[in-house]
Amino acid sequence: MTQLHNRQLYLHQRPVGVPTEEDIRMRTVLVPDLQEGEVLIENHYLSLDPAIRDWMSDNDSYLEPIPLGGCIRSTTLGKVLKSNHSAFSEGDYVQGLAVNGWEELTVNHGDLLTQVPNDGNYSPRNYLSIFSGAMGLTPYFGLLELGQPVEGDTVLMSAAAGAVGSIAGQIAKIKGCRVVGLTGNAEKASWLTDTLGFDAAINYKTCDNLADEIARVCPERVDIFYDNVGGDMLDAALLNLNDHARVVFCGAISTYNSSGSVPGPYNYWQILARSATVKGLLTTNYVDRFDDAIAEIKTWLEQGKLIFNEDIVEGLENTVEAYSRLFSGANKGKLLVKLAAADC
Amino acid sequence: MTQLHNRQLYLHQRPVGVPTEEDIRMRTVLVPDLQEGEVLIENHYLSLDPAIRDWMSDNDSYLEPIPLGGCIRSTTLGKVLKSNHSAFSEGDYVQGLAVNGWEELTVNHGDLLTQVPNDGNYSPRNYLSIFSGAMGLTPYFGLLELGQPVEGDTVLMSAAAGAVGSIAGQIAKIKGCRVVGLTGNAEKASWLTDTLGFDAAINYKTCDNLADEIARVCPERVDIFYDNVGGDMLDAALLNLNDHARVVFCGAISTYNSSGSVPGPYNYWQILARSATVKGLLTTNYVDRFDDAIAEIKTWLEQGKLIFNEDIVEGLENTVEAYSRLFSGANKGKLLVKLAAADC
Repeated sequence: MTQLHNRQLYLHQRPVGVPTEEDIRMRTVLVPDLQEGEVLIENHYLSLDPAIRDWMSDNDSYLEPIPLGGCIRSTTLGKVLKSNHSAFSEGDYVQGLAVNGWEELTVNHGDLLTQVPNDGNYSPRNYLSIFSGAMGLTPYFGLLELGQPVEGDTVLMSAAAGAVGSIAGQIAKIKGCRVVGLTGNAEKASWLTDTLGFDAAINYKTCDNLADEIARVCPERVDIFYDNVGGDMLDAALLNLNDHARVVFCGAISTYNSSGSVPGPYNYWQILARSATVKGLLTTNYVDRFDDAIAEIKTWLEQGKLIFNEDIVEGLENTVEAYSRLFSGANKGKLLVKLAAADC
Repeated sequence: MTQLHNRQLYLHQRPVGVPTEEDIRMRTVLVPDLQEGEVLIENHYLSLDPAIRDWMSDNDSYLEPIPLGGCIRSTTLGKVLKSNHSAFSEGDYVQGLAVNGWEELTVNHGDLLTQVPNDGNYSPRNYLSIFSGAMGLTPYFGLLELGQPVEGDTVLMSAAAGAVGSIAGQIAKIKGCRVVGLTGNAEKASWLTDTLGFDAAINYKTCDNLADEIARVCPERVDIFYDNVGGDMLDAALLNLNDHARVVFCGAISTYNSSGSVPGPYNYWQILARSATVKGLLTTNYVDRFDDAIAEIKTWLEQGKLIFNEDIVEGLENTVEAYSRLFSGANKGKLLVKLAAADC
């Protein structure tokens, strides 16, 4: 059989700041012959996640850095074109958790690859958004396992209109908490309160002093701070913690584009002063509970208690530009790239 | 009755750096007449604790700052000279938890004042060291409740020869952990391993790169980091955490004398990367369990599993100089000041 051509985005150089098309370039490569145990996947959607920025840097982190010259590692939703793996068949929709890449075709060894249902109830694409680690499962385990919400708690959410924040806030509402979102424009603030049911939203770009504004909007202080952002926002939240507060450390998007070493929060002392707990979240710790979590998320969707938004950009060639929207806060909900092959 | 004279140390100005006799001055004041519900205490020993440095600053912390002109707030061990409080009688030995002061005589309203036994088995003074929040109870609850040690865990201890570290390390040994201490001179390093039974000690003043040295001495990485120091030592420890590690945030003595805002740990990201947990410790959260904890500590002492050292300086007039030893790391075990009235 003729070898297939694969357009892919690869790491040409490690980015300084927000990644550009100088850092991440397109090339066409030939797909190698499929070996025993391998699966050839035609990617339909790419998941654009803040965590990928971390993997582009040469850091000591939870995954190896993406090597220079390597395809950008990503979660994708695709369809099996050919399978030499007993668990997967041609035509299956599959999701690869942080093992596939920003490319048209991926050869996967079956690691962290899961089959996705195509039963007409939900689009397979939803397994890259609401049923994925990056949108549904991360806030599910982050809020419930690490946050330990109690009815009546005040929950403060950073990047509240993002993929994780928008869901974590709604799950906190389901659990009877008062939920306040931090976001960067008035339209998203209205979406949080009017559509998603948040109790209040703070536009951090228009308030003079964020810590004072949080104190005003959260007069009973903050029991759970769900941290997607780090930096100044984390510092403002730390000044408003209640005794025994939980800080769910889910991400630090404000720091991912920094060069050199980044100081931790200046108000780190408040962790001691408030007998608070900061817990680091890796969703992969809960992989054996994903099915149960997805079942509960489906129940909430069907009961109308949970709403999600997919923010879809078309075309592999627009991926790098789309990715920058995560850092300017321009996306609403889960940011995906739809590739030419997509049929769902 | 003639009014009594009381020599006391008071906060003349907020210190910049290590407190000096310019900041903390001596004066003699008259003791006011005792009101209903009050107790007049003759102080025998003062407890010199790192936390007091925090209270000298105008910070947002877990206790109000000591007011300018106010006596330095401290835990003390003393004897009741006169009581208008039903729970205390003349001649009782009493310990006041962070409510008394660096002075000869204290009038206390009975708040956080506890009677201390004088049954011949232990000196009442021991209730300011091994049976106190500042030496025995803090490491007891910090290590056991927040650290959650499991047999075989590697425990890394900062300020390991200090009041808290020396006890926390031994409790970790009792629980079957491998314990490594960080300390600042060779004599204390030997004391940790040869007398207290630590598995290893690192003299942080003589190693080139502390993170590398921790990695060498802890090849299975660190499951519990008991943090008394903060700063560079915390950063070096964070780089060596195991997955699901616990950081017990007990103190940050390296930062107490800093001016202006102090950055949090530069390696804060490792909390996420290692699914770690940082927990802030205030021993007062466990006050209803102090008696049970003291009973268990006594058992360990009687079984020879726990050794403690009291580092005693004589004279109220030497208190400020003695206090500076905490910050140079010159003390070994619990630092106390013995006042002229002491009879135990």
